Amino acid sequence: MNKTTDRSLATMARQMKKDDHFLILTHRRPDGDTVGSAVALCIALRKLGKHAGICPNPEIQDRLERYMKPYVSAPDARVDNVVTVDVPSYGQMEATSKVYSDRIDYVIDHHLANQMAARKAKFADPSAAATGEIIFRLIAELGVQLDAEIALPLYISLSTDTGCFVYSNTTVQTHEIAAACMRTGIDAAALNKEFFESKRRQRFEIERLVTGDLRFFDDGKIAAISVTQKMRRDTGATEDDIDDFSSIPRKIEGVLVGISAYEQPDGSTKISVRTSGEVDGSVVCAAFGGGGHACAAGCSLKEGPEDAIQAVLAVVRTHLAALAQ
Amino acid sequence: MNKTTDRSLATMARQMKKDDHFLILTHRRPDGDTVGSAVALCIALRKLGKHAGICPNPEIQDRLERYMKPYVSAPDARVDNVVTVDVPSYGQMEATSKVYSDRIDYVIDHHLANQMAARKAKFADPSAAATGEIIFRLIAELGVQLDAEIALPLYISLSTDTGCFVYSNTTVQTHEIAAACMRTGIDAAALNKEFFESKRRQRFEIERLVTGDLRFFDDGKIAAISVTQKMRRDTGATEDDIDDFSSIPRKIEGVLVGISAYEQPDGSTKISVRTSGEVDGSVVCAAFGGGGHACAAGCSLKEGPEDAIQAVLAVVRTHLAALAQ
Repeated sequence: MNKTTDRSLATMARQMKKDDHFLILTHRRPDGDTVGSAVALCIALRKLGKHAGICPNPEIQDRLERYMKPYVSAPDARVDNVVTVDVPSYGQMEATSKVYSDRIDYVIDHHLANQMAARKAKFADPSAAATGEIIFRLIAELGVQLDAEIALPLYISLSTDTGCFVYSNTTVQTHEIAAACMRTGIDAAALNKEFFESKRRQRFEIERLVTGDLRFFDDGKIAAISVTQKMRRDTGATEDDIDDFSSIPRKIEGVLVGISAYEQPDGSTKISVRTSGEVDGSVVCAAFGGGGHACAAGCSLKEGPEDAIQAVLAVVRTHLAALAQ
Repeated sequence: MNKTTDRSLATMARQMKKDDHFLILTHRRPDGDTVGSAVALCIALRKLGKHAGICPNPEIQDRLERYMKPYVSAPDARVDNVVTVDVPSYGQMEATSKVYSDRIDYVIDHHLANQMAARKAKFADPSAAATGEIIFRLIAELGVQLDAEIALPLYISLSTDTGCFVYSNTTVQTHEIAAACMRTGIDAAALNKEFFESKRRQRFEIERLVTGDLRFFDDGKIAAISVTQKMRRDTGATEDDIDDFSSIPRKIEGVLVGISAYEQPDGSTKISVRTSGEVDGSVVCAAFGGGGHACAAGCSLKEGPEDAIQAVLAVVRTHLAALAQ
């Protein structure tokens, strides 16, 4: 929360107070942060007497939809000011909202390299764990009192983008804002139960298939999983259900390199490599035309999942052998 | 943090400042809260120039031992003042520390019905998510500055007792203290990774065996798991590895009643029943001489796990049928 960024948030708030008829856009495959941010901002603007609504997002999951539904704008609503929240790039705009791509007035985001252009004001702060943290500060700049109605979507935003305060993006500010939200009396325990302590049946089913087949190699230093099209068909699992599967192998103690193979509809394979850092995952994936970071990298192979794993495994082993020397 | 409780913490702090030669006791099968509380208090007392050490606890896991080891007292250390942290009852005292059971001077705990007697001062606050929250406040009353050395074990205490801020015991105060701890510069992300993002190989192995055999009954309204002695032998899993397995069935969406059967070495079965609240688990378990709460209850059956599950299932079904009417 340095002064420069707060000053530009104040500028954004001053401008917003002069405007009216807001439409708020969320990103593709909307998560708790984009939805929570949109809902909190929408409520705050309405409390200022503004007309505000959220653009429909047909990709939204049931779990989040019930929080957004009461704020979705009518098809015939007048739109003078378009705001994007948590949308990093034009490619991440959901189809319904793309009609507004050349007339975005406000951009609010926490992604490192936000590519969106704003006609009036843009605020992107990668130090925020969630866009909801920025919305919290913006709402204060707007002079709107934080109450339970606003705190609830903000808590969803913060908690979902940090895996409930477990990921490395969690900061002092995240906990401070969570405390402020809970002080309004929201039932954070019920939200945590809903978002973190419950699992879709489809997700449970595919997870046990995938972990059932997890294989260890080289004394448990390497572990690999496959997510096949058949598993997805048999369980009815969606993309969201397998969202964080790449982290499964590496979470097991002793595993230095986790390989996750996702079979594509055309029979090819997307590989995700997660490492403890000793082996550089980006170098492993570069051997197959991919890239990423040392701890999390990816590549695509035209082979099926089993052959793809064997190919990646061979490269990982040369790097592990180099380490042992 | 009401004034009454804070006043009695202040009284405890005043008394402690007059004393010296402290020995701090942790509870059986020590968790992050008892260990983190003991380490933080030990450091704070030493910063006041006191002699302080923690009683050895042979039941400690490797993961926690490295945080406690530097503070374990020498066998010949003088002991004038004995302090228990997070120890709810004499039965929960670890064998090594039982020699001190009739000469405990200070009792600090957050369990609802703490049964320990203190010669000098006792402070039990069930509103604290972790005993570490009370230690945080006590350290402030002692006039010791919170620094990274003290904040690290306190963060372990808070985060482990709340499942990283996800359980319903998490309060505004929990987040505020977490923020204060992180403000000292501790690497909370590394701690979270160690305690929440990593799984022992033995735990992974038994979890996939257990979830692989999980069965649904009655259109997914009931789910049941068995943890057999064979699974434990085959995987080498400890009590700690299967610690929270009873929550696995109920976490699946649509499951109203989760039944977990733990085969005992003598062939009998301990049953845990978790419910969404519609069915009263304590009533189900009472049919077998057990008890508990509506959402979490338990009982013991002399039958093996499969027969025990069938017996409990029959009772659960009568309650589900009553609901449907």
